[in-house]
Amino acid sequence: MIEPKILKGFRDSLPAEETEKKRLFSILERTFTSFGFVPIDTPVLEYTEVLLGKGGGETDKQVYRFTDNGKRDISMRFDLTVPFARFVSANLDKLTVPFKRFHIAKVWRGENTQKGRYREFYQCDFDIVGVDTAAADLEILTMIYTSLKNIGVENFKIHLSSRLVFNRFLETLGIKDKLVDILRLVDKLAKIGKDEVSRQLAEITGDENAAKILDYISMEDTFDRTLEKITSLAGGEAEDTARLHTLKAALDSNGISDCFVLDPSITRGLDYYTGLVYETFLDDAPEFGSVCSGGRYNDLASLYTKTKLPGVGASIGIDRLISALEAIGRKNSDVSLCDTIIFNIDESLLGYYTKIGFLLRENGISCDIYSETKKLNKQFGYAEKKNIPVGIICGSEEFQSGTITVKNLATRENFEKLTLEEGIEKIKSILKR
Amino acid sequence: MIEPKILKGFRDSLPAEETEKKRLFSILERTFTSFGFVPIDTPVLEYTEVLLGKGGGETDKQVYRFTDNGKRDISMRFDLTVPFARFVSANLDKLTVPFKRFHIAKVWRGENTQKGRYREFYQCDFDIVGVDTAAADLEILTMIYTSLKNIGVENFKIHLSSRLVFNRFLETLGIKDKLVDILRLVDKLAKIGKDEVSRQLAEITGDENAAKILDYISMEDTFDRTLEKITSLAGGEAEDTARLHTLKAALDSNGISDCFVLDPSITRGLDYYTGLVYETFLDDAPEFGSVCSGGRYNDLASLYTKTKLPGVGASIGIDRLISALEAIGRKNSDVSLCDTIIFNIDESLLGYYTKIGFLLRENGISCDIYSETKKLNKQFGYAEKKNIPVGIICGSEEFQSGTITVKNLATRENFEKLTLEEGIEKIKSILKR
Repeated sequence: MIEPKILKGFRDSLPAEETEKKRLFSILERTFTSFGFVPIDTPVLEYTEVLLGKGGGETDKQVYRFTDNGKRDISMRFDLTVPFARFVSANLDKLTVPFKRFHIAKVWRGENTQKGRYREFYQCDFDIVGVDTAAADLEILTMIYTSLKNIGVENFKIHLSSRLVFNRFLETLGIKDKLVDILRLVDKLAKIGKDEVSRQLAEITGDENAAKILDYISMEDTFDRTLEKITSLAGGEAEDTARLHTLKAALDSNGISDCFVLDPSITRGLDYYTGLVYETFLDDAPEFGSVCSGGRYNDLASLYTKTKLPGVGASIGIDRLISALEAIGRKNSDVSLCDTIIFNIDESLLGYYTKIGFLLRENGISCDIYSETKKLNKQFGYAEKKNIPVGIICGSEEFQSGTITVKNLATRENFEKLTLEEGIEKIKSILKR
Repeated sequence: MIEPKILKGFRDSLPAEETEKKRLFSILERTFTSFGFVPIDTPVLEYTEVLLGKGGGETDKQVYRFTDNGKRDISMRFDLTVPFARFVSANLDKLTVPFKRFHIAKVWRGENTQKGRYREFYQCDFDIVGVDTAAADLEILTMIYTSLKNIGVENFKIHLSSRLVFNRFLETLGIKDKLVDILRLVDKLAKIGKDEVSRQLAEITGDENAAKILDYISMEDTFDRTLEKITSLAGGEAEDTARLHTLKAALDSNGISDCFVLDPSITRGLDYYTGLVYETFLDDAPEFGSVCSGGRYNDLASLYTKTKLPGVGASIGIDRLISALEAIGRKNSDVSLCDTIIFNIDESLLGYYTKIGFLLRENGISCDIYSETKKLNKQFGYAEKKNIPVGIICGSEEFQSGTITVKNLATRENFEKLTLEEGIEKIKSILKR
């Protein structure tokens, strides 16, 4: 006998959890598709050199890397960005540019599991590649907005900022060479606090500059006033601030700008981003941090191709979003795993049960037929565990008169001697359809 | 610069292909869910010992196996059956039994790619575990039937047979000890032909028995007459033949028995199956072999638990089914990647374009907004590549009068000066909704 144990940092997905995850993915996919975004997929395994570059980097230690039977040095993907860059480079002639794609898939990292992190998890990325326009920036922002609304999240804020304006600001201070260090520090604001950021900034660039940076990254009361302030600190209007005005006007004219905050403290740390950057927080669960982040980059695939591919995109943190939704109040235990169950009380009626099942499904009602002629108590227990709201009882008497008994399993109320048509109507009314 | 190459036996999934695959998965998932089956997921990586057993077996060479940074001997899953057995054993207290689950996911095998096989591919399994009843056998069969109908396959045959009856038959011949060898040979019938099977059977068990086996596995003209013949050859009626009668009666009473063939040559080779076994062939693409196979087994998880778990299930060969569907006539190039496109002819109208997009999506119409103000020719080319049927043109004149021009991109017909409401109706009529 072998113990059915599971690797540290990995987990099974049980039915209620997996149902909820599939529901979420399905809403996201429908939303992305409704914006004309298309799905792609890439292999889980790639050449290590393709994923990590010739040298390999900091990520190395976390990568599941090995030698296959053909002596190839291969790795499991650790994100969806690098495979996307490889994909676009390899298939450029077959893609429509601007290329709008989404990809929801698992990635693997040998993370430290003590922080509550998993070594296998989903990522959900979407990007528009091939253009650097306000239209593309706006579309990613409205798609984040629509995704969260469609999931049922009412209250959230998308905090956005522009790296270009920040760059100009550092130029006016004459410290653009310290950009990367300053970005990393500002990105830690929420984690280590204002005082510590200020102290470390001062170490890098002096007290005066530190104070100016802290002033720059603090918000004013409205989007417009914050925009006015950073424009002035960055040396006046330019293309970068004009784009922020264009975005704001489009959000205004659609009546959705309440969900958008201009927040100059958003930097996304990574050197990778070059324009607009953003993070998304749920009003009712801010402690989970950003559930959707992204931004604009200059060149997606410089590692693989000379074709310059500017783009803009974002990534939804699926696990974090699910945890935040649970905290707000949605629970897996509320998930019903089926609409109806036909209780199996007479094996000779199997053909009739099957017929009722077909009929219900044709009417959009899911139907579980209990797989064994067993005491009703056992069958009720099964229905309860699967959180099934409606039972159907049918013995030889019902069969002969062509009727069924419908049972509301929550209230225990019975509705007897219904024709199949009446039964379907009754079931729909219990299911509130 | 690194070449964006991909591993041998692996492939990218391009948008049209991935869209079609997602459409297929979505139909299958909705079908399974409509029968009360629930989704689960398991980790891609497991302890090698858990996947291969203590010794490891013939499969070994094909398994992606390596040592992780924690010095664990781990492997990528090569099917969904072994992880399912592990899953059920580990989570038995949390599952509702009879447990009806489905699992659609990728698996990996270092197959010989010269046979046109891939090293990364999908499996789609569904099972009912915990009972040995006609109701469970029937439900898997009707679910295969419904799945294929829902996918749009009109003509197919599910060939079924009973290993129990075959066992009894071999007993009457006194050669039950040769069961495994005989099963393997009979399973090769379609591949190596009747004569070769006959020759090899004769080697194992003599000319006379070989002739009797060949007689047993040949079909009569109807289900009932074949059943009559094998019942007699196996020594008369018993529980196993009674179950075949029960199944046939239930299929008859639902008017679907035309899709089911009693075919005693079906054995599924594997020793694993112990009762009903089946394979599914498309009438219009028989050369692809079985697109859905399965059967009943005695004990799912004997490797991990003493709890006896009889079950019945099947597996849809996703890649094979997709190839067969393509051969029948469905082509990826016919897939439309979006319903409508708003041509971007005036950047100052971005807010209005966004508004039209929101409105269309609220009406269930997917909408792509072109990401750049570019020559209309370029934008038409993009729409054509994405196979988008409807275009929306809107300049400052339309904006001021609150109208749009709708263009049928197939016929090039324009419908001008429509209000948004009229526009939506026109679009729906072009999309035939």
